[in-house]
Amino acid sequence: MSTVQQAVEYARKNQDKFLDDLKAIVAIPSISTTPENKSDMDRAAEWMASRLRNLGMNNVQIMPTGGPPVVYGEWLDAGKNRPTVMVYGHYDVQPVDPLDLWDTPPFEAITRGDNMFGRGTSDMKGQVVASLSAVESIINTGGLPVNLKWLLEGEEEIGSEHLGEFIQKHKELLKADVCLNPDAGMISADLPTITYGLRGLIYMELRIYGPSRDLHSGLFGGTVHNPAQAIIELIAGMHDKNGTITLPGFYANVRKLSDQERKDMAQLPTNEKFFLEQTGVPALWGEPEFIPIERTSGRPTLEVNGLLSGFTGEGSKTVLPAWAMAKISCRLVPDQTPMEIFKCMQAYLEANAPRDIRWELKNLHTAGAAITDIKSAGVQAMSKAFETVWGKRPLFKREGGSIGVVVQLQEYVGVESVLTGFGLPEDNVHSPNEKLHLPTWRRGIEALIHFFHNF
Amino acid sequence: MSTVQQAVEYARKNQDKFLDDLKAIVAIPSISTTPENKSDMDRAAEWMASRLRNLGMNNVQIMPTGGPPVVYGEWLDAGKNRPTVMVYGHYDVQPVDPLDLWDTPPFEAITRGDNMFGRGTSDMKGQVVASLSAVESIINTGGLPVNLKWLLEGEEEIGSEHLGEFIQKHKELLKADVCLNPDAGMISADLPTITYGLRGLIYMELRIYGPSRDLHSGLFGGTVHNPAQAIIELIAGMHDKNGTITLPGFYANVRKLSDQERKDMAQLPTNEKFFLEQTGVPALWGEPEFIPIERTSGRPTLEVNGLLSGFTGEGSKTVLPAWAMAKISCRLVPDQTPMEIFKCMQAYLEANAPRDIRWELKNLHTAGAAITDIKSAGVQAMSKAFETVWGKRPLFKREGGSIGVVVQLQEYVGVESVLTGFGLPEDNVHSPNEKLHLPTWRRGIEALIHFFHNF
Repeated sequence: MSTVQQAVEYARKNQDKFLDDLKAIVAIPSISTTPENKSDMDRAAEWMASRLRNLGMNNVQIMPTGGPPVVYGEWLDAGKNRPTVMVYGHYDVQPVDPLDLWDTPPFEAITRGDNMFGRGTSDMKGQVVASLSAVESIINTGGLPVNLKWLLEGEEEIGSEHLGEFIQKHKELLKADVCLNPDAGMISADLPTITYGLRGLIYMELRIYGPSRDLHSGLFGGTVHNPAQAIIELIAGMHDKNGTITLPGFYANVRKLSDQERKDMAQLPTNEKFFLEQTGVPALWGEPEFIPIERTSGRPTLEVNGLLSGFTGEGSKTVLPAWAMAKISCRLVPDQTPMEIFKCMQAYLEANAPRDIRWELKNLHTAGAAITDIKSAGVQAMSKAFETVWGKRPLFKREGGSIGVVVQLQEYVGVESVLTGFGLPEDNVHSPNEKLHLPTWRRGIEALIHFFHNF
Repeated sequence: MSTVQQAVEYARKNQDKFLDDLKAIVAIPSISTTPENKSDMDRAAEWMASRLRNLGMNNVQIMPTGGPPVVYGEWLDAGKNRPTVMVYGHYDVQPVDPLDLWDTPPFEAITRGDNMFGRGTSDMKGQVVASLSAVESIINTGGLPVNLKWLLEGEEEIGSEHLGEFIQKHKELLKADVCLNPDAGMISADLPTITYGLRGLIYMELRIYGPSRDLHSGLFGGTVHNPAQAIIELIAGMHDKNGTITLPGFYANVRKLSDQERKDMAQLPTNEKFFLEQTGVPALWGEPEFIPIERTSGRPTLEVNGLLSGFTGEGSKTVLPAWAMAKISCRLVPDQTPMEIFKCMQAYLEANAPRDIRWELKNLHTAGAAITDIKSAGVQAMSKAFETVWGKRPLFKREGGSIGVVVQLQEYVGVESVLTGFGLPEDNVHSPNEKLHLPTWRRGIEALIHFFHNF
């Protein structure tokens, strides 16, 4: 029997032990958002650290950040000529309210049929335990063929505010050839999925100032450029009728989707029907030369996230507002950068804002786009692992949102991530009755065993 | 000495008595907006009724409305061939807070130099007492040459909510040839003013509905027509670049300003400099073929009074909003009607709203435009009165706002109003230290004596 097959056999034999591990960590209510759970957060970090030590990891540390600590561990004895794989995970979970909608206690992992219920079973204690279980299976059946580093954070569910700083500070420690991030899940139980791209973001606030105070629209209406009107005119000029963005230079650095990427995207189940059902809109919208999933993941956008001006209560007040505000964000794709788009917006406003108002543009938040080379060793290792276990090539997709750790690892340490996982859309993640589909989870552990062996 | 001259002499001799009247009614804190002052409101109404009885008015009544009562009185003994003049006034006043900014107690009318200070001295107890004083002067020096009706309301400062219903209900009682409304004031102490037109109003609320809930802009941005974007596109299409309204048919019934009107408006001190100073904007805006005062009083507008969509707090939230709302109002001029403009808006939305959103348009409030024929007997009587007392033709102007009683008297009873008065822009109306300029007020009483005699 090959060593990989031995490892798979080990995993099959130790399923109950792995499930006990999962039960033990689910039992710790490590909710990062509530201060009352601070000691639980510490216990969860301790649990992770101790599990890493038991696996034989070295240099295991609970490392402080401005927020909950990071658990780190490594095993670098595969040799300098072997790749180093980082495994990312988070040990914190979402709150559980409304508690009365749970059928079983959220912090008791209870198996019913094919599913194990409990907060964190899917997002993502179950995914971390799957990674730990795969590594244990390999270590106990011939040893790891790669070097390993673990980066387990405790504030993913509250925005990973301090992780970027941590990664910047520990660049050397975190050097790796690839990061396995099993927090992204799969499209359905029979469709293994690899996410290889994330959109970036620039989030701006535009303010238009007109008169020095709210004016009576009867006394002044007709001779003052209404700031609400002015902001409307400016924003209306940012798209053409097809939904294409008209800011000069906006698309200059957009990396074109390859034929293969478009072919892969066309096969995703997130088709027009999916988007209509998910959103409830009467009809879809957007660049006509792209299909919906291309538009939401492979193309940049310019979105109005908020609008405020004048009187917005019930009834009528005939005010001519002193100012108007819009929150405007752009989702970015490789190789756009947030700052280049901010400059596009500034230049547009400078060229188009009328002289009868004043304007102010603020940059509130940025995140770079992330992309992982599909031909890289990490993606290929995971892709082959899925082919072995599921018997089919995984679906390759990009995500429309941003994930801090992926962007930060790419930007600060130069590590690309393989985003995958064994959570399902129906797992009630962030909701009552969160659950994990055990048959998929077990196949996931086997796929991870193959992943490490495929390097 | 002519009877009119005798009346003027009477007024001059009785100045102290008239001032005592004003002091007496200012002393009653008839604030209509605060329930605590309900008994003061009743006392003020009683004071008015008793003053009318003392003047020899007949059929004096304190008449209920859904709000504060109306004080009515009449004297119809001038004969059927003589015109009937209605005098409008209100006995309620604005609140006085912040009290610590008043130099003297607001409900003690105190004379310092040329001014009498106190809440209501200018707006408009002083104007009502001027009217009562002028009528007393005439009655005591030969008698009234016209029939007279008094319509004194108690909820002007809170929007005259119940007055329209009252006027509709008492159409016969309120029949008159003209209404003198001295609540409009004058531009400056040496520029007597007659306001002969008011803009009407239609106030609408437009709602755009997109997805069934707020969406994550990362996951859905690019394939859903953002309701904030859609409302922006629709509203942007309602004006052209010059500020001209583009709703089809919007200007169809606009009564053109005559050459004389434009000549009068060009003489008003409310010039470009005035509007720049009053508003603090860097430059004015609006239809280039009209001067500012024409645009704010003689031309219709379409104004965004409020905008609301999505996330409007501090910081950033990457939401793709489920809906967007705009408050939109149009100021109307003769001979536009609110409903015809509502239909213009509906037709525009039907023609231009895209099928990927849903929309809803509500009519929240309407008021007709009002116009008084400058050649009418009432306007001519007032104009000549000003020429006699001030030695110059008054300025004729229109107001950009709407005044409920003027519109309702025109609409329900067919009575046009002569809007004038002796309040000044610097009177601190609605503010601490409200005051009345006594020399102007005294000339006002004389002008009113001439007004009644000029019929």
